[in-house]
Amino acid sequence: MENKRQTFVTDDFLLNSDTARKLYGYAKEMPIIDYHCHLSPKEIYEDKQFDNITDLWLRGDHYKWRLMRAYGVDEKYITGEGSDYEKFSSWMKTLSLAIGSPLYEWSHLEMKQYFGYDGVLDENSIDEVWNLANDKLKAVSARELIRSSNVEVVCTTDDPIDDLRYHKAMADEDMGFRVYPAWRPDRILNTEKTDWTDYLRALEDAAGISINNYETLKVALKNRMEFFNENRCRISDHGLAHVPYLPLTYEEANDVFIARKAGKTLTKREAEGFRCTLLLDLFREYARLGWAAQLHYGVKRDNSTYLLKRIGNDAGGDNIGDSASISDLCDFLDALDREGSLPKTIIYSLNPNDNTAIDTVAASFQRGPVTNRIQHGSAWWVNDNYDGMRDQLRSLAAQGYLAGFVGMLTDSRSFISYTRHDYFRRVLCGFIAELVEAGRYPDDDDKLRKITENICYYNAKRYFGF
Amino acid sequence: MENKRQTFVTDDFLLNSDTARKLYGYAKEMPIIDYHCHLSPKEIYEDKQFDNITDLWLRGDHYKWRLMRAYGVDEKYITGEGSDYEKFSSWMKTLSLAIGSPLYEWSHLEMKQYFGYDGVLDENSIDEVWNLANDKLKAVSARELIRSSNVEVVCTTDDPIDDLRYHKAMADEDMGFRVYPAWRPDRILNTEKTDWTDYLRALEDAAGISINNYETLKVALKNRMEFFNENRCRISDHGLAHVPYLPLTYEEANDVFIARKAGKTLTKREAEGFRCTLLLDLFREYARLGWAAQLHYGVKRDNSTYLLKRIGNDAGGDNIGDSASISDLCDFLDALDREGSLPKTIIYSLNPNDNTAIDTVAASFQRGPVTNRIQHGSAWWVNDNYDGMRDQLRSLAAQGYLAGFVGMLTDSRSFISYTRHDYFRRVLCGFIAELVEAGRYPDDDDKLRKITENICYYNAKRYFGF
Amino acid sequence: MENKRQTFVTDDFLLNSDTARKLYGYAKEMPIIDYHCHLSPKEIYEDKQFDNITDLWLRGDHYKWRLMRAYGVDEKYITGEGSDYEKFSSWMKTLSLAIGSPLYEWSHLEMKQYFGYDGVLDENSIDEVWNLANDKLKAVSARELIRSSNVEVVCTTDDPIDDLRYHKAMADEDMGFRVYPAWRPDRILNTEKTDWTDYLRALEDAAGISINNYETLKVALKNRMEFFNENRCRISDHGLAHVPYLPLTYEEANDVFIARKAGKTLTKREAEGFRCTLLLDLFREYARLGWAAQLHYGVKRDNSTYLLKRIGNDAGGDNIGDSASISDLCDFLDALDREGSLPKTIIYSLNPNDNTAIDTVAASFQRGPVTNRIQHGSAWWVNDNYDGMRDQLRSLAAQGYLAGFVGMLTDSRSFISYTRHDYFRRVLCGFIAELVEAGRYPDDDDKLRKITENICYYNAKRYFGF
Repeated sequence: MENKRQTFVTDDFLLNSDTARKLYGYAKEMPIIDYHCHLSPKEIYEDKQFDNITDLWLRGDHYKWRLMRAYGVDEKYITGEGSDYEKFSSWMKTLSLAIGSPLYEWSHLEMKQYFGYDGVLDENSIDEVWNLANDKLKAVSARELIRSSNVEVVCTTDDPIDDLRYHKAMADEDMGFRVYPAWRPDRILNTEKTDWTDYLRALEDAAGISINNYETLKVALKNRMEFFNENRCRISDHGLAHVPYLPLTYEEANDVFIARKAGKTLTKREAEGFRCTLLLDLFREYARLGWAAQLHYGVKRDNSTYLLKRIGNDAGGDNIGDSASISDLCDFLDALDREGSLPKTIIYSLNPNDNTAIDTVAASFQRGPVTNRIQHGSAWWVNDNYDGMRDQLRSLAAQGYLAGFVGMLTDSRSFISYTRHDYFRRVLCGFIAELVEAGRYPDDDDKLRKITENICYYNAKRYFGF
Repeated sequence: MENKRQTFVTDDFLLNSDTARKLYGYAKEMPIIDYHCHLSPKEIYEDKQFDNITDLWLRGDHYKWRLMRAYGVDEKYITGEGSDYEKFSSWMKTLSLAIGSPLYEWSHLEMKQYFGYDGVLDENSIDEVWNLANDKLKAVSARELIRSSNVEVVCTTDDPIDDLRYHKAMADEDMGFRVYPAWRPDRILNTEKTDWTDYLRALEDAAGISINNYETLKVALKNRMEFFNENRCRISDHGLAHVPYLPLTYEEANDVFIARKAGKTLTKREAEGFRCTLLLDLFREYARLGWAAQLHYGVKRDNSTYLLKRIGNDAGGDNIGDSASISDLCDFLDALDREGSLPKTIIYSLNPNDNTAIDTVAASFQRGPVTNRIQHGSAWWVNDNYDGMRDQLRSLAAQGYLAGFVGMLTDSRSFISYTRHDYFRRVLCGFIAELVEAGRYPDDDDKLRKITENICYYNAKRYFGF
Repeated sequence: MENKRQTFVTDDFLLNSDTARKLYGYAKEMPIIDYHCHLSPKEIYEDKQFDNITDLWLRGDHYKWRLMRAYGVDEKYITGEGSDYEKFSSWMKTLSLAIGSPLYEWSHLEMKQYFGYDGVLDENSIDEVWNLANDKLKAVSARELIRSSNVEVVCTTDDPIDDLRYHKAMADEDMGFRVYPAWRPDRILNTEKTDWTDYLRALEDAAGISINNYETLKVALKNRMEFFNENRCRISDHGLAHVPYLPLTYEEANDVFIARKAGKTLTKREAEGFRCTLLLDLFREYARLGWAAQLHYGVKRDNSTYLLKRIGNDAGGDNIGDSASISDLCDFLDALDREGSLPKTIIYSLNPNDNTAIDTVAASFQRGPVTNRIQHGSAWWVNDNYDGMRDQLRSLAAQGYLAGFVGMLTDSRSFISYTRHDYFRRVLCGFIAELVEAGRYPDDDDKLRKITENICYYNAKRYFGF
């Protein structure tokens, strides 16, 4: 009796040439530096275990929720009161015909890498996978998942007011990987939020000083940055609708600060000017500290009031926003560059139409001795898929220096999304192999190996100083 | 003596792998649901016959006119006083070297499917094709062309004031296919048009009520929608420069209505606000009736004053317009969704740069139990070609649920453009086959067949309720 | 003892099918009409010789500078006080791993075509190439480089005030190729520049009349155009942020002119209106003279203050700008077309996202008897690479008449960038071959040859009237 179960993901997944397979042989040995993710430091510290595969795989994954909604699943079985088994079943049925979706491919990679399941995920394998995964999960924990993924560094995403207690606790532990904090000051930049003054008070507490004007705000943030820096933070991140350029004088910025602190609603122009001015000051500090800055923009968030009210933020109601100003991005970078305080900066737009423009902007601000001082970040979020990755690689190669690219990150909340690095490496090796096979670069094993290993690992290590 | 005539379109046209050919075997058997076209109900009812191949093929086809103008043909032989034979000759000469044009491929498919001509269309085959086609046309009529194309449903495009007399007359006839009306209320939405008040009066007549305020306007339109619904209308359509979001209060909307009815020229803001408000009210009604809504936007029309004056609208002087606001599109959908009155909606932009953004917006508003409640419409008009179709499919597959796609429509004025469905099916099968051959989806015949047949036929049947 | 040196560029570079190779056999025999470049007429006249390969290859090449900066080279060894050998070495090291960069491919093509070097350019071949190239350069001059490239016509880029002395001097010389001037009136259109009034005085001198109002400005420019026309100018060019449409009345234009001449700073609206109005008048004159017009737009220039101050304009700090208005482009073309004074016009945007829109705009304004009266210019500057070229070809083929395309230009300051024509021809032949091999156009040698030769040579010859 033969086993008729079809296998799907093989070792050669996406590797359709000898060159691609050879390069992947190098790539897969490289450790992972996951320089931007949304893992919980607490869960890593506490070495979280998981109730079942739904808990691990579907609980917080708005990517999967969106596909389930498109398939027509009732919200009850996505984020609602349905049982974990029902939710898992709904996901497996959704996957069945989901040809071309990155989630189809990621899901199979995840089940193979972490649970050894190499069959097809669909309505017929629900129970088999449910039992297999839940069984294996009993012996699995957060740290084990990270360790087994050959991860060297994880950078979490942390608020300036965070006490970094878990980072401190993990700093001296030998976990087989290192966990660093990353600085994400979005809340102080978004004066539009109703809880901004509450946040300001929390920042005062964290920094241990009164913040009565723009100047003391800067001092407080600087204190916190020093604290983050002492705790091995080397990266900052910013989530923006667009990169603003509308700098205020310090007098103006101070007036805006005072008004907002007093509870006044700012004009759009005031809020934008304040954000730009403070962002410039933060970047000056990053440059001084040698941190890298990340700019994530091009998103319109919380578009579905229904999802926002029912589930909250990050519920799957976010999408690409209107095109952001290239002009403002240039002027922002130049304002810092001309005074010698432009830090290493990674630019990500959610709109894939921005790829070429971003690469040409980056090229205008490159400066030795750092290779690719300005980086065009890896295809992000909705673009984190086969064509999205290839489009970013192609644009970067044509406009800049691909071999100096810092490569992939997960941007994930999940402990098993390191397969995205694997997916990226396969796409990368396929992309490089195609250039070689098209005769556009010599078939020189030493050089191709160096390019591959650099993009998968060494570039990030050098760029961030890990 | 061998026949030296070169053949061009073969059965395997665009099908460059075994998988593609196998899938096309399934696809080609599917009936056609042409859920959006511009065929004349009168001509179908009267079973129009054609003077000659120019009458059928070139008379109203602004796609072909544009290519002839690019080639350098004098307008006399395009839309002017040239003879039908001269116009046909000009078109054949234009085709000769038109490599890469969708018109080259469509034209060959049309001549093969409807006239059995499988040679090359160029300056050497003018007389052969002219005689062959005209000869066959004697025995051919509108209905015969539709029937022989395996069409199950045709949805025409009809104005709210239309009495649907031809639809009524055809409703009980067994023609071998069904013809349904579709609701297109553009004229009442475009207060910018100078004949708007004339149109309003015609609407009063059609609805049989006086329209003196915004409320009675809504009642009149609701009456007409009920009438359309009784006559088997299930779809609406809207041609817009962009999807507006600038809702007025009913008091404001009423003031704007009164002013415009009195002949006042509205400000841009008033016209836009009125359009948004009325469109929201129309959509609420579509949701109630279970109709699907179509949003076609991204066009700048009548750009050539020369063509407009000489020929009129739809003369070939339309092109892609400036990027429309993604933000407004989101807010428009959310305004309806949050009150539970967002109908099934199909979104089409003429600008292919909008593909990914549209797919991510759609994903924000999906909701079961309908599969793909929000659809990203098939590549439209200038994008209705090989790469345009593939780009739309690729984006939809990456961002949404391809297997739930309602697929192709002709959007055509011609009785022989069902070959566009054939073209689409070939592209679709090629696209799916490539994913399978790249190892990105299992080579599972049952599933691939289901995906193919669903996109070609069953999804549309289910989605529209035909 | 075998030579272990790896060769890279072969005769079949980028030609990956029999059809592609066959077509390239036709393409490579075609002379070059370089209808837009930035070569110095003086250097051609004086038959410039070169100090060394750095002088020829790196001195003025901001494309290469950008890649060196990304790689991390110190500005000293790019544009600074480093020695020519050091700069050359830096470039060779930069190239080593620059997979996917057009500069990698161009550089190898240049070294092969002009210096017979077919090895790999990297850190190991620095001395070999340095010695080889410098040795050969002793016997090489500007004219010899042009001649050996099979160039028939070179169009330089000249200011309206230029006395065309070198063009006059070369007019009767038999150099084996012809050099024509091209008219680029940017300086008079840019009232924003501080030296505008100085320029106005220089224009008065050149035209030999006083320019006291808008009318005499037009007369002066018309004089200069007649002068250029007598000196065999047939082409104009314009570098714009975007194509403006904000026409002034002549009274308004005159007021703006008077104000600016008196040293007043214009409002943005005044400057834009003046630019639009004068541009329309210039285009009317081009139409009368039978000249072709070029519109280059979509650039944001001089973004890096650091580079601008240290090096000046064209230092490598330019990039893609914000999306330009499609609507204005249409209205600008229509304003001329509806009065019968739209010249042959070639449109280039630096933003590749504009490709499809431009092709659809062009189609709205085509008019016989000229084939492709409105041309979509070849992939330009940052898009002048493998994918950029293919994207432009694909869009043009889908939306317009590819076979009527005027094809490639160098847009270069270098005497050895004719390899860009070679590169283009290889991409073109590969692109056409793919269409044939995909079964989308018949494998008809006569037609394919005609299409290829027309795009490489005959179309430009006919279109410009050379």
